[in-house]
Amino acid sequence: MLEKIDLTKKMDKDIFDRRMKELEPKLGRLQRECRERKIPVMIVFEGYGASGKGAQIAALIHALDPRGFTVYPVKNETEEEKMHPYLWRFWTKLPEQGRIALYDSSWYRRVLNDRFDGKIGEAKVEEAFDSILSFERQLTDGGMVLLKFFLDIDKKEQKKRFKKLLDSEDTAWRVSRQDLERNEDFERYQEMNEEMILRTDTDYAPWNIIEAVDRRFATLKIYVLVVEALEQALRRAGAPAEEEEPVPLHTPSDASLQESTLSKVDLTLSMDKETYKKKLKKLQARLEELHGEVYRKRIPVVLGFEGWDAGGKGGAIKRLTERMDPRGYVVNPTASPNDIERAHHYLWRFWRAMPKAGHIAIFDRTWYGRVMVERIEGFCTTREWQRAYREINEMERDLAQEGAVVLKFWMQIDKDEQARRFKARQENPDKQWKITEEDWRNREKWEQYEEAVNEMLIRTSTSYAPWVIVEGNCKYYARIKVLQTVVDALEKRLKEES
Amino acid sequence: MLEKIDLTKKMDKDIFDRRMKELEPKLGRLQRECRERKIPVMIVFEGYGASGKGAQIAALIHALDPRGFTVYPVKNETEEEKMHPYLWRFWTKLPEQGRIALYDSSWYRRVLNDRFDGKIGEAKVEEAFDSILSFERQLTDGGMVLLKFFLDIDKKEQKKRFKKLLDSEDTAWRVSRQDLERNEDFERYQEMNEEMILRTDTDYAPWNIIEAVDRRFATLKIYVLVVEALEQALRRAGAPAEEEEPVPLHTPSDASLQESTLSKVDLTLSMDKETYKKKLKKLQARLEELHGEVYRKRIPVVLGFEGWDAGGKGGAIKRLTERMDPRGYVVNPTASPNDIERAHHYLWRFWRAMPKAGHIAIFDRTWYGRVMVERIEGFCTTREWQRAYREINEMERDLAQEGAVVLKFWMQIDKDEQARRFKARQENPDKQWKITEEDWRNREKWEQYEEAVNEMLIRTSTSYAPWVIVEGNCKYYARIKVLQTVVDALEKRLKEES
Repeated sequence: MLEKIDLTKKMDKDIFDRRMKELEPKLGRLQRECRERKIPVMIVFEGYGASGKGAQIAALIHALDPRGFTVYPVKNETEEEKMHPYLWRFWTKLPEQGRIALYDSSWYRRVLNDRFDGKIGEAKVEEAFDSILSFERQLTDGGMVLLKFFLDIDKKEQKKRFKKLLDSEDTAWRVSRQDLERNEDFERYQEMNEEMILRTDTDYAPWNIIEAVDRRFATLKIYVLVVEALEQALRRAGAPAEEEEPVPLHTPSDASLQESTLSKVDLTLSMDKETYKKKLKKLQARLEELHGEVYRKRIPVVLGFEGWDAGGKGGAIKRLTERMDPRGYVVNPTASPNDIERAHHYLWRFWRAMPKAGHIAIFDRTWYGRVMVERIEGFCTTREWQRAYREINEMERDLAQEGAVVLKFWMQIDKDEQARRFKARQENPDKQWKITEEDWRNREKWEQYEEAVNEMLIRTSTSYAPWVIVEGNCKYYARIKVLQTVVDALEKRLKEES
Repeated sequence: MLEKIDLTKKMDKDIFDRRMKELEPKLGRLQRECRERKIPVMIVFEGYGASGKGAQIAALIHALDPRGFTVYPVKNETEEEKMHPYLWRFWTKLPEQGRIALYDSSWYRRVLNDRFDGKIGEAKVEEAFDSILSFERQLTDGGMVLLKFFLDIDKKEQKKRFKKLLDSEDTAWRVSRQDLERNEDFERYQEMNEEMILRTDTDYAPWNIIEAVDRRFATLKIYVLVVEALEQALRRAGAPAEEEEPVPLHTPSDASLQESTLSKVDLTLSMDKETYKKKLKKLQARLEELHGEVYRKRIPVVLGFEGWDAGGKGGAIKRLTERMDPRGYVVNPTASPNDIERAHHYLWRFWRAMPKAGHIAIFDRTWYGRVMVERIEGFCTTREWQRAYREINEMERDLAQEGAVVLKFWMQIDKDEQARRFKARQENPDKQWKITEEDWRNREKWEQYEEAVNEMLIRTSTSYAPWVIVEGNCKYYARIKVLQTVVDALEKRLKEES
C-alpha cells in the first residue's frame, strides 16, 4: 500500500497561493458554522518522523479562530497518564461540541512507536487495536468528525531531513535516537504503519494519506480534505435523514490532488527476443521445480491478473503455465457473473475457486471487477464498491493467514499501444475473436478506469497480497517480469518454510 | 453474562400449542415472501452440547417448505476442507438469494471446540475472530439476513442430559469424550462461549440467547425471533430508504419471552443486627488492609452502584468507605450532566473520573444511566441506548485490560419495600431531603425500569466486569454482601498478582 504512493508530486507556488487564498477564508467560515451547529472535530496527524506534522498543523490553524481550537502534542506518557488506562489521556482531551482539537501524533503511538521500540508486547498491540477501533467508533457514533492524516515520505527523504536537522544546533534536539533507528529499519517500521492503516481504515474514520515530500502539495491536500469533511458534516447536520455519505480515502474531489500511480510507470522498458527466449526457458524450468516443492509443502498459491484490454494477460498466463504440471494448477477465466453467481455475494464465486493447499489458482480477471467495471458501469452502488476495498483486503488476509502466496498483476500499457494491438487483432483472422465492440467502448472510458485503477492499486496493495505493476508495452519484458516475480515469491516463501 | 440468564423458564403446553398454531403458517408465509423478494437467510445454531440444537432445527423446519432450505450439520473438517482457508467451507455453503440455510453449529466451532480442545493456538483464535467478524459483515452488507442463536443450559442440566443419552445404546454414540470434558470443565468452556458472544455480538449480526432447558420455551422463542427478523427484513426490502432498525438482542417483542432476572432475586434474605455488627467490623478491618495492598501493587479499582431509589446505595457506600484511607479513594456522585458534560460524549465524564493505578473510584450511579433513565425518559435515541451496551462493555474491557478490578452492584428491593422507605423518609425531618417528587414519578415507571434493568444486567455482566445483584430488602444483609464481594474480589486479584 504505502510503497504504491507517488511521492514525487509537486505543487506549483502560484497555483498554491491562488488556491490557498480561497481555502483559508472558507475554512474559517466552516469553523464558525461548525461551532454554531455544535459539531466537534478531531484532526489527527500521524506519519513518519520529519514528515512535517508540526509544519502542516501550523499551516492549518493559520485559517482558524484561535478561540475555537486546541493543539495537543502527544509525547511520551506522563507519570499521571501511565497510571491510567491507555486511552484516558485522549478521553480527557476530547473537544467539546463546536470545538476543534488537533493531535500532533495520537493514540496510534502505541501501535507504532511503542511497538517498534519493543515497549509493549504483541498481545498488548492486539488490545490496543481493539481499544482504538472502539474509541473511534464511539466518538463518531456520538457525532464527532474525525479526520486522520498520514504524512508519507520515504526513507531517503527522511534521512535527508534528519541530516539537515542534525546539522544545526538549534534543531538537532528534534531528532532522537529512536528516530534514527526507525530510519535505519525503515522497511520494518513502514510495515507497522501499513498494518495500522489497514486495520483502522474504517468507514467511520478513514485514513487520508498525504504525500508529504512537497510541503505545498501536502498543505493543499490537507486543506481540501478538511474543507470537504466539514462541508459534509454540515450537510449531514442539516439533513439528518439523508443517507450518510462515506468519506472516501485519498481522493479529494480536486483532480490536481488525485492519485497518479499509473502515469509514473515506465513503459519504455523492453527486452529483445534473444534475451527473452533465454530467460523464458530458464524461468519456466525453475518454476516447474518450484511447483513441485510448493505441492509437497502444501502451500496454496493465488495469482490474479488484471490489466487493460489487450494488456497481455493471456500471453503472460500462457508462458506462466506452459511447463507446469496441469494437475497442480487451474486457470479461472472470469466473465460476467451468471444467474447463480448473481444470486450470491459477489465474492462467493471466487471463494469457491480458491486453491487447496499445494495447488495454484490463476485468475484471468478477478474479484477486482467490483472496483473497476462494476464501479464504472454502475453495476453496483457507490457504497458497495467503496466497501469492497476492505472486503477484498479481508478476503486476501484470510487466504494469507492460511499460508497462501497471493500476488496480483496489473498489466499496464498505454492508450496508443492498445490501439495498435486492437488494430492488429482486427487484421488477423485468427485473433479477430479477441476484439469486440465492448473493447472499443471500454477504451472510451480510459480516464475513468485509470482513476479507479489508481485507487485500487493503493488501497489493496498489502504486504500479504501485493500488486505488481507490469510494464507491458513490450510483451517480452512483461512476460519475463511476471515469471520472475512468481519465481521470486515462491522461492522466498519456500525459504521461510524450511 | 451467561451466568445471569434465567434458565428456569417454562412454557405451558396449552399456550405453546396455541401460539405455534399461529406461528407455523406465518413462518411458511414469510419464507415464501422472502423467496419472492430474493432475500437470503442464514440461521446459526450454537450452544452447549445436548442443549437441543438438532431438536430445535427440526422444530423450526417443520414450518418451512423443504424446497427452500438446506440444513448443514457442521462437524470436523474433511480433508478437502482442511486444505482450504477456514471459511472456505462456509463460503461454499451460502444460501442463494431467496433460500434459507440452517447451520447446526457453524464457523464458531474454531473459537469454541477447537480452542477448548487446544487444537489451535491463541494467535489463530485472534485471527479467527477477525475473519468471522469480516465474514458476517460482508454477508449482511450484501443483504443476507443472519440470525444467530445460542442455546443455553447449565452444567447440571447438561450432565443430566448426557447421562440420559449414555444410558441407552441407541443414543450413547452422540456423547463424545470431548463433550464430557467440556462438561467437566464447564466454567472454562462457558468463559469461551461468553467471550465469543461478546466479541461477535454486532449490530449487523447480534446474538440471541435462548434459554434451552425447557424445550417448548426455546422453540417458541426461536420461532418468534425468526418471524420478527424476517418481517423486519421484508419491511426493509420494501422501504430501502428507511433508517435501518437494529435487531435487539434477547428481546422478542413478546412479553412472555422476555427476561426476568430481577424477579428471581430472593428478597427474603436477611441478617440480624448482632451478626451484622460483628461481620461489619471484621470486613471493614480487612478492607482497610486490602486497600493498602492494592495501593502498593498499583491496582486500580472501579466500583459502580446502581439500584432502585431508596435501594440502599448510599448506606452501602458509607459502610464500604468508613474505614478506608480517604487519600486512596474518591466517591463520585452522578447527577444529571451539566452543560459542559452535555457538550461531550456521554462517557467522557466517567472516563475523566477513572481511578489511577492503586486508587479506588466509587460511583454512586454510573454510566448505566444511558440504558436506564436516558432510555426510559427518551433523553437519547433508541439507537443510542442500544449501542451503549457495546460501548460500555468496551470501556470496561479497556479498564480491565489495564489491570483494573471492576465491579458493579445492583441494589434490588421490591416495590413495597420502596414504598415503606419513601414514607419513612417523608416522616423523618432529617431524611426528608432525600425524597422528591421525581422519586414518586420514577416509581410509576417501575415495570419499564425492570425491563431495562433486566436487559442491562444480562448484556453487560462480563467476566471482566460482573454485575452483582444485591438482595436489598434487609439493609444489613445488603451491606455485608457488598463488603464481602469487594473483599473477595480484591483478595482474588491480589492473589493473581503475587
